[in-house]
Amino acid sequence: MTTQFRAGSPRVALLAPIAWPVPPSGYGPWEQVAFDIAEGLVARKWDVTLFASGNSRTRANLVSVVPVGINEDPALSGDVYGALHIANLFRRAGEFDLIHNNFDWKPLTYALAAAEPPLVTTIHGFSSPPILAAYYAASARSFFCSISDADRDPGLDYLATTYNGIDPGEFTFVDRPGDYLVFLGRFHPEKGAHLAIEIARRAGVRIKLAGIPHDPKYFAERVEPHIDGDRVQFLGPVEREERNALLGGALALVHMTTRPERFGLTMIEAMACGTPVLGAKMGSIPEIVVDRETGFLCATVEEAAGVVPLLRDLERQACRTRVETTFSRERMIDAYVSAYTKALELRVPPPPSAAVLAARDRDYWDRPMAFTDDPPKPRTLRSGNPFA
Amino acid sequence: MTTQFRAGSPRVALLAPIAWPVPPSGYGPWEQVAFDIAEGLVARKWDVTLFASGNSRTRANLVSVVPVGINEDPALSGDVYGALHIANLFRRAGEFDLIHNNFDWKPLTYALAAAEPPLVTTIHGFSSPPILAAYYAASARSFFCSISDADRDPGLDYLATTYNGIDPGEFTFVDRPGDYLVFLGRFHPEKGAHLAIEIARRAGVRIKLAGIPHDPKYFAERVEPHIDGDRVQFLGPVEREERNALLGGALALVHMTTRPERFGLTMIEAMACGTPVLGAKMGSIPEIVVDRETGFLCATVEEAAGVVPLLRDLERQACRTRVETTFSRERMIDAYVSAYTKALELRVPPPPSAAVLAARDRDYWDRPMAFTDDPPKPRTLRSGNPFA
Repeated sequence: MTTQFRAGSPRVALLAPIAWPVPPSGYGPWEQVAFDIAEGLVARKWDVTLFASGNSRTRANLVSVVPVGINEDPALSGDVYGALHIANLFRRAGEFDLIHNNFDWKPLTYALAAAEPPLVTTIHGFSSPPILAAYYAASARSFFCSISDADRDPGLDYLATTYNGIDPGEFTFVDRPGDYLVFLGRFHPEKGAHLAIEIARRAGVRIKLAGIPHDPKYFAERVEPHIDGDRVQFLGPVEREERNALLGGALALVHMTTRPERFGLTMIEAMACGTPVLGAKMGSIPEIVVDRETGFLCATVEEAAGVVPLLRDLERQACRTRVETTFSRERMIDAYVSAYTKALELRVPPPPSAAVLAARDRDYWDRPMAFTDDPPKPRTLRSGNPFA
Repeated sequence: MTTQFRAGSPRVALLAPIAWPVPPSGYGPWEQVAFDIAEGLVARKWDVTLFASGNSRTRANLVSVVPVGINEDPALSGDVYGALHIANLFRRAGEFDLIHNNFDWKPLTYALAAAEPPLVTTIHGFSSPPILAAYYAASARSFFCSISDADRDPGLDYLATTYNGIDPGEFTFVDRPGDYLVFLGRFHPEKGAHLAIEIARRAGVRIKLAGIPHDPKYFAERVEPHIDGDRVQFLGPVEREERNALLGGALALVHMTTRPERFGLTMIEAMACGTPVLGAKMGSIPEIVVDRETGFLCATVEEAAGVVPLLRDLERQACRTRVETTFSRERMIDAYVSAYTKALELRVPPPPSAAVLAARDRDYWDRPMAFTDDPPKPRTLRSGNPFA
């Protein structure tokens, strides 16, 4: 079957989150991806309508029901404006050839009322097990993209893995290895800053820590006591320029997460600067880091400390090349264009296999996934599939 | 225009809340109304499909995505299962001639995607100002019913006032006035238990208090210190039988609310027992209580205490008759049948008047209404109408 575009390129409705404007001025990874997709498609002459907050900046057609990001005006109801934001797209669904949902699970429940147009949903993260019910319920209606092969739920079929991408041009390549390790990210146990400190200590190398104390108790107990301004330096949150210099000047980025990472933007930013990654052998990290080429994959702190002396011998150009070939913004746009094209051809997801169906009921609450929250399992639910 | 029913009576989809099963075993006023409507329509041979929790009990066709009421299994996600509950109705919307929404504002945002079938929404309460945006956005799609003339938002047009109704047969009429006042309801400042106590004290009459300490701080500070087991008696929550006896044996129900009441089921229960109401002259109370016939409408505690001696002279039969003629379950079903018939004829709500449109922007956050919550007004919203 060949795809018939109605007039020129397909008309794509891109649903962005509204926690922050698109692009976000600071934090806002999902909004950043939505921005990048919109700009990338517009550059390729696609007809894109971006549903986002009113203070967003885009070359696509912008449609908004909320003036600013929900988090920018704490009195805005995210519940109400989130629903209206979604509703505003679906009441206009007939104007588009394809909908690309980047706003989590709720839009899926709206999409169920009509079979058209084809819907692609990027699952940027599973916040907690209950939302699997919405994904399962909508699996005959929406195609799904994961942001790594690792971040896939066994109860879902996927159209594609669409890695997030960056513009390598925004990162300065540094040819010579630095003399410090760097940790960059939220200070939360699962991001492993405490492990990064321990690795640096054992290897006898300085470490610089940057980011937001997302979990203040953790920061105060497990990170702060180690900060001495010399062996362990704390820089707080760093903006674009400083971030570039910090990453480029490092011997390696330490990314010893304690839960499976879904993607890990910081790793590709470091690699774009030529800086290898000392990463945990779990989640998406083995897909991003080529072991012994663009970093090291380690199962333990001992192992990680042991390979620190080998970091100087890695070719920094290999890191840069890896980003250019696999994790650039253009590769991400390629991946979405390919996913959209497939969705426009298939129109409806194929029926799930028996194995996928079975996985929806089998221990669906206890996936070894990177759920942000782990609520107790309801006593009364026997199936993960509400429409089963 | 005359309504064409496809085959026999119209097929109605009734969307109930899922906080509790239908009917609720204890608290659950919206679920109770949904149950009563379903049973009443089935008795009149209507084809009713009730969307409610799986442990609901109904003679209608029951459709569920959640096994029990959300509040009966604290680990169930109300957010996820609420959305799936709504989605399950709208994905099957084509099977029905009419949808009657009793589940607040969220279903309105789902209904926007299709013009059919006609949608009637009973507004059982406005929880907080932000939800007005959803009502305004959906006002061209849904007809609205209020549960009293008083509980109307000036930014909305209404199809009908559909008073809640009870079965008078479930309440025992008592011909002779009792010698105590009664307060029955949630212990929350707006329900005015503290005013009821003060009225009883000033009038030199005993008072019995029954209900749940909904606001424990208020209960501890403003109610508990007065309880002496004699002049002021506290009974806690009372079930059906005890409630009947408590109401029937009273001189009057005191209902001195401090915020406008939306409807006030307790008042019609008391009146069904022949017991008049000493009520605040605000909100729905003047619609329910005929001043000096089935009770007294008072603006102050002084005024209320002053009329206590007159309560014995009211004809208790007038109270019972008032319920039978105006607030019975059968009258409620009549009202809904009439509203449905109008909606089926009109199909789409008529355009709002200029005055109604203007009210959507004018101080829409500061209505003198019975909002449960009063969040701060967003700095960034100029209009109450998100699609304006």
